[in-house]
Amino acid sequence: MLNADVHRLVVGSSNETPDIEYITGFRPVDAVVMLKSGRRQALVVPALEYGRAVKEAPGTQVFTPEMLGLAGIKRRGFSQWALGLLKKYGIRNVTVAPTFYYGVAEKLKQSRIKIAVSEGELFPERRVKTADEIRKIAESQQAAVIAMRQAIALISRAEIDHGGCLRVRGIRITSEMVIDSVVKVLLDHHCTGKGTIVAGGRQGADPHDTGHGRLKAGELIVIDIFPQNIATGYWGDITRTVLRGKASPLQKRTYTAVRSAQAAALALLKPGISGRRIHQAVCAEFVKRGFPVSFPDDPRKGYTHGTGHSVGLAIHENPGISPAPGRLRKGNVVTVEPGYYDPELGGCRIEDTVVVTEQGWKYLVPCEKRLEI
Amino acid sequence: MLNADVHRLVVGSSNETPDIEYITGFRPVDAVVMLKSGRRQALVVPALEYGRAVKEAPGTQVFTPEMLGLAGIKRRGFSQWALGLLKKYGIRNVTVAPTFYYGVAEKLKQSRIKIAVSEGELFPERRVKTADEIRKIAESQQAAVIAMRQAIALISRAEIDHGGCLRVRGIRITSEMVIDSVVKVLLDHHCTGKGTIVAGGRQGADPHDTGHGRLKAGELIVIDIFPQNIATGYWGDITRTVLRGKASPLQKRTYTAVRSAQAAALALLKPGISGRRIHQAVCAEFVKRGFPVSFPDDPRKGYTHGTGHSVGLAIHENPGISPAPGRLRKGNVVTVEPGYYDPELGGCRIEDTVVVTEQGWKYLVPCEKRLEI
Repeated sequence: MLNADVHRLVVGSSNETPDIEYITGFRPVDAVVMLKSGRRQALVVPALEYGRAVKEAPGTQVFTPEMLGLAGIKRRGFSQWALGLLKKYGIRNVTVAPTFYYGVAEKLKQSRIKIAVSEGELFPERRVKTADEIRKIAESQQAAVIAMRQAIALISRAEIDHGGCLRVRGIRITSEMVIDSVVKVLLDHHCTGKGTIVAGGRQGADPHDTGHGRLKAGELIVIDIFPQNIATGYWGDITRTVLRGKASPLQKRTYTAVRSAQAAALALLKPGISGRRIHQAVCAEFVKRGFPVSFPDDPRKGYTHGTGHSVGLAIHENPGISPAPGRLRKGNVVTVEPGYYDPELGGCRIEDTVVVTEQGWKYLVPCEKRLEI
Repeated sequence: MLNADVHRLVVGSSNETPDIEYITGFRPVDAVVMLKSGRRQALVVPALEYGRAVKEAPGTQVFTPEMLGLAGIKRRGFSQWALGLLKKYGIRNVTVAPTFYYGVAEKLKQSRIKIAVSEGELFPERRVKTADEIRKIAESQQAAVIAMRQAIALISRAEIDHGGCLRVRGIRITSEMVIDSVVKVLLDHHCTGKGTIVAGGRQGADPHDTGHGRLKAGELIVIDIFPQNIATGYWGDITRTVLRGKASPLQKRTYTAVRSAQAAALALLKPGISGRRIHQAVCAEFVKRGFPVSFPDDPRKGYTHGTGHSVGLAIHENPGISPAPGRLRKGNVVTVEPGYYDPELGGCRIEDTVVVTEQGWKYLVPCEKRLEI
């Protein structure tokens, strides 16, 4: 895809892109400059990061702006850092990601550096995970599954009071309480739990509403847990939808449709298939079961998102399982997460993270699925 | 600074920039497009975010790509989202941040949109905090101070074994154990604690080394806690350096130099002063006390970073207190955090977060400072 003459240039922090950590092993707190040029890799980091960068990026040449001869006002500004590095190696043309800083690109061009933008990711090699990466994602997924089981156990042992609220030892339980318990379990597994979703009833109709307030019986409760391991940086991702008490016929039909949609996706998943074809099969399954995919008058209603995304050093990576072009390959680690949303009914989503194998796929960490608890 | 004709365009997620949350109240999980044009503000979000965006951004017009008439392949790609929005409002020229996506900028230019890059931040109004913002930062700072006191209490009640290791109830305590206890306290205050540093001995010489393994008596231990409140999104930031047992004369002199350097900075801090002048005073204080600011042969050694940064919806904001140009103003919330680093000795840093007031400054939340514990 990329030949050895391509000089790939990155400016950013680990918040913006995991590319730098992926290539060098160094996780930059603030933005730094990285060059990957065949087997050569180099970093420009502020002086305060020099020691850590040298330790964490053993195969990489590390410079501070001062070491590149930058002084005074030139010591500041990523364009100067990048120009200093390119000059050092005699490089006049670079390839950058579509998300490269526009301000830096303009200044490089003023200094007659030629800039090409990559089609898609700058580091497509991130798509296929190594055995070591799969092990690390599975470690985070294991934490997610343990946290999921504890969240479901907490809700399932709740009593239902006269108002339909869930109570544990007399106290009404809330989304926040369940989220806290999840985050603490994740922490015990050295993972962060930022963004954990426990959204009951109508809140679940917004796929990214994290949920708040009292949890009630008879409502769909969407629980979405996506931990990042603090040491390795790799993510896991799982979603279950549960209901305390008795589900209504519509709630049951919705849950069954989502499960069938997930099964339809998994039945097709194997190396060589396009994400679009899987996504279309999921849509077809919803329609077949009487659940239209979209409603022209309400963008919130229906099956409003893609079927899946890859997971790695970022929570959302390529390839995805969506209408966008691209095929799945052995070693991709993807979520399969159809969901159905209706502002009146709430949300229902089931998500597993699986690895694409030669024969098809397998769960990273299996976890049971049940609506009524 | 900016006149009402400026059409400010942002593409990004909350990981990349808090600008969107600052302006609209909506915290985007994945990248979205925002336009701020005088009093008008508009968002383009994927369908799955539409319901949440409408709820969280009440003063903002929210569109999905479909609502802008984008279909098929045009539904994808931020340049199409941005072009759809600009067309809707008849806008042909925009101002973007230096960090704007280069790939999107190139496509806008192909569609004859004129692009100006802002000098510095696109939203300089974020520099001066409102009373409500100061209250929210103080809330996170309060959590940081409580967590700091518990971390110090844990280390101070440790016993020192024959090997010089710290033990609590017979167990050797590690950086990871103290970090976990900090993160749990922060969680109880609805804050994340990702990145918490508890670095003993030589590890502390890298300002961003988070620390690992056994903690020992007689070593400088740098504790840096910077929580983000999960609900408000605002950060706090504090650092203390402590030592269990008896400090050596050099450790004491280093600690005293850092404290004096911080005092020198605070003595100057008031509206109208330049960050550079404060930073120079800190450097002068180090030199006066026999601690050179930099060592030509080792970039890791000396006073290797700026004196401070602003804190808000991002942990590192402008204005800073550094050689970069810019003056402090009433309502800035800044850290004052000189530190001294030596790969042999370790690190020593003291950091408080203060608000610039008419008369000078005040602590957001005061917290005691003591080396030997």
